[in-house]
Amino acid sequence: MAAIPLAERCPMDTQTDFLERAAALLGPRGFTRDPELVQPWLTDWRGRYTGRAIALASPGSTAEVAQLVRLCAEHGVPIVPQGGNSGMCGGATPDESGSAILLSLRRMNAIRRLDPLAREAVCEAGVILQTLHEAAAAEVLRFPLTLGGKGSATIGGLISTNAGGTQVLRHGSMRAQVLGIEAVLADGSVFDALTPLKKDNRGFDLKQLLIGSEGTLGIVTAATLRLLPALADRAVLWAGIGAVSDAPRLLAHAERLAGEALEGFEIMPRHSLEAVLAHVPGSRNPLQDEHAWHVLIELAADRAHADALPGLAQELLESAFAAGLVEDATIAANEAQAEAFWLLRDEIAPAERALGPAMQHDISVPVAAMAAFIEATAPQVETRFPGTKVVAFGHLGDGNVHYHVLAPEGAIRGEWEENEGKQISRFVHDLVTGWQGSISAEHGIGQLKRDELGRLGDPVQLHVMRAVKQALDPRGLLNPGKLVPLAPDGANP
Amino acid sequence: MAAIPLAERCPMDTQTDFLERAAALLGPRGFTRDPELVQPWLTDWRGRYTGRAIALASPGSTAEVAQLVRLCAEHGVPIVPQGGNSGMCGGATPDESGSAILLSLRRMNAIRRLDPLAREAVCEAGVILQTLHEAAAAEVLRFPLTLGGKGSATIGGLISTNAGGTQVLRHGSMRAQVLGIEAVLADGSVFDALTPLKKDNRGFDLKQLLIGSEGTLGIVTAATLRLLPALADRAVLWAGIGAVSDAPRLLAHAERLAGEALEGFEIMPRHSLEAVLAHVPGSRNPLQDEHAWHVLIELAADRAHADALPGLAQELLESAFAAGLVEDATIAANEAQAEAFWLLRDEIAPAERALGPAMQHDISVPVAAMAAFIEATAPQVETRFPGTKVVAFGHLGDGNVHYHVLAPEGAIRGEWEENEGKQISRFVHDLVTGWQGSISAEHGIGQLKRDELGRLGDPVQLHVMRAVKQALDPRGLLNPGKLVPLAPDGANP
Repeated sequence: MAAIPLAERCPMDTQTDFLERAAALLGPRGFTRDPELVQPWLTDWRGRYTGRAIALASPGSTAEVAQLVRLCAEHGVPIVPQGGNSGMCGGATPDESGSAILLSLRRMNAIRRLDPLAREAVCEAGVILQTLHEAAAAEVLRFPLTLGGKGSATIGGLISTNAGGTQVLRHGSMRAQVLGIEAVLADGSVFDALTPLKKDNRGFDLKQLLIGSEGTLGIVTAATLRLLPALADRAVLWAGIGAVSDAPRLLAHAERLAGEALEGFEIMPRHSLEAVLAHVPGSRNPLQDEHAWHVLIELAADRAHADALPGLAQELLESAFAAGLVEDATIAANEAQAEAFWLLRDEIAPAERALGPAMQHDISVPVAAMAAFIEATAPQVETRFPGTKVVAFGHLGDGNVHYHVLAPEGAIRGEWEENEGKQISRFVHDLVTGWQGSISAEHGIGQLKRDELGRLGDPVQLHVMRAVKQALDPRGLLNPGKLVPLAPDGANP
Repeated sequence: MAAIPLAERCPMDTQTDFLERAAALLGPRGFTRDPELVQPWLTDWRGRYTGRAIALASPGSTAEVAQLVRLCAEHGVPIVPQGGNSGMCGGATPDESGSAILLSLRRMNAIRRLDPLAREAVCEAGVILQTLHEAAAAEVLRFPLTLGGKGSATIGGLISTNAGGTQVLRHGSMRAQVLGIEAVLADGSVFDALTPLKKDNRGFDLKQLLIGSEGTLGIVTAATLRLLPALADRAVLWAGIGAVSDAPRLLAHAERLAGEALEGFEIMPRHSLEAVLAHVPGSRNPLQDEHAWHVLIELAADRAHADALPGLAQELLESAFAAGLVEDATIAANEAQAEAFWLLRDEIAPAERALGPAMQHDISVPVAAMAAFIEATAPQVETRFPGTKVVAFGHLGDGNVHYHVLAPEGAIRGEWEENEGKQISRFVHDLVTGWQGSISAEHGIGQLKRDELGRLGDPVQLHVMRAVKQALDPRGLLNPGKLVPLAPDGANP
């Protein structure tokens, strides 16, 4: 069944009726059409997309979300759920038709329960990541996922996009943290699977479907999340290596030696380090000589294992030298230096942006193949698009790098991205697909990559995705235009 | 859409046509109707169900499976996939109509690739668990899932039932081992997601749907599985405690102290130990005095961590004593004794069976609640059904015990199970549902628990399950009558 055309969805009189009922349901704190209040949420944070909405709904409870969704179903009003609005792919921005209601989960920001013994937290969708970090820390625990936008990203958004970050190497992405889930489905029914059962084989694991579905199958309203013992100490190493192809051997060595203590393994090319050093006042190169590539390794331990950490870091450093796996390396002498090492990593994106326009790609291939992928494809891109430069950096330990292609000198920002930039992205996506990789490792699909997924996705998998979407949201009211590619006949799934 | 009635599915002339074409497709090694060859696979291994089949198909490749499924779709022939036929719930046994084809995956038993560096194995569905263990061991690796039926259970069956076992505490169930999957869908298309990507956010994680779906959504033909460094050493502890409610504190203590080294935490009541001691010649109680409950704790380490293991075990033992967490405890002095300790655990089920009839329940509740659940519900069961005795043992660390209810003395085997036994199971399932637990922790649903799932499952979740089943297998040809409960109107989903 094709989606109902917009015009049919919400003719003027039913729209008025809907708005009155929604306003009555949610009250003044939960419903507004005031442009000043709605406007800030209609543009994604990268500023790529701006949409319109008939209203901004901010329900205060799961029951209110359910009632609102039922009301939307009754009136055929599309729903765009939104958390912290810090997504990378426009997944939380409505389209320009103005027919959808923007459903903010930000008011649902209670940590319903935090059980230090069971190491679990039940969070509502609007809990901000940083808030959860602080609540866990107060119990000498931690939530093992973090990322740049932690001050605005919400639990609901992180689940809906299966967010990654810098700790996936050891702890997995958001999917691995979710023990239970509560969501409102397209018909307004409440899917309640919050109770965390370590073993449960009562059929299809439906919560897995909701994780990473970007609000297209249901609206996550709460989740039970796992917590871990707080970290007591960390050791941050910085190494220089001669070629990116040396990185996988160093990674394997670090895994063998440090095992569960290995928390991070990030790579960056000389170009990125130089860009950061030029961009960040007071920053300095941890090593004296120049190296083609740099690796940041983080080891971490909780209280029970903290004593062994300095020795482990030293052993890793020395054995890596002895085995010829690094050209040079050093260990951060203290926490301030550790922060300084990480700052070099975290500032790559802004530093590269300051240099001029670039096309950014969030891609993955099998972990073991990533170095070879970079070595093989960078020349292909640079040959095909003369004057460009490939800069790949990030989570090598996850088989996931940020693959930036910098514009030729003199390229005009805005114009270049729209023309050569788009061709470059297609070319990069073709390459990564040829290597059996993913065109979206951690940022999701949203509106940004929906057409690319339709072009490059496996037809069988796309067919199943559309069938599942159709089964759970037959009228296509949940976050329309996001993630699920159009059918081959152009119909909205 | 309701499923097509059996009579319409396969009238006699199309049946003949189907059988001829299937025989031609698969050849004599892959297709038989010889009762002597088919018969052994028509009864589940517990002997609870016996069905009929029009033929036994044993394709040798994914392409053959796909062609066969297309042929079945064309002729409306239901398909019952089967691995080692060692499931506990009749999930691989056809019904008595004889309309289905039994599709054995046992001939597809190649390990297509085993990559020691990436620590991955690509196994076809018919690879026997024991075979994978041996192949991994040859590379000083291990596959971290094992269970009693490892000599016959296949990878495809383990994935389709999301099998558990004794190592879930640390390593998770089968779902956690699967990095990639290949399956044939209801229309004969091949779902190929074998490439392991540590990060991949291209929409719904469809492989999760196939894991644990018991062949009702697709037929798993191969999988990429993760491997771990081989274990170099283990330490097995045996402790006596005064009450089951002491077990969670001991578990928390062991987790805090041993962290990642904690591989097993199994409980058993005195009754079970005595039954084993009486049943197994030469077995002996590891402790001198009597204790109400016993705990088996296994710590394990790979080469990098083996040196610390004996000290860790000793520290755990001593600190547990000092904290008053155990009445008595001992460490297996050598591997033979460790084996002997585990034998006591592994022989509980046969030993209890020898005592007389019993109803067995594979249930879970949140880990932290399991001891309280046993303490609260055992008296309820024993009061409601006088003369019965509750014996709960097993994976406390997973919140999953085997909850056996022994028949009153003099109960007649066969008769008792069918009458009082069935009432008891309903009662136990009601109790566990009231505690927000699962009526199937690790064995699945199959035909055994389908009606109970329909009776007790959350209506919203059942609705979604049926919708997904309908979307992926609209004609209901994949393993009909298994797992997915009938719709409220009695229609087969």
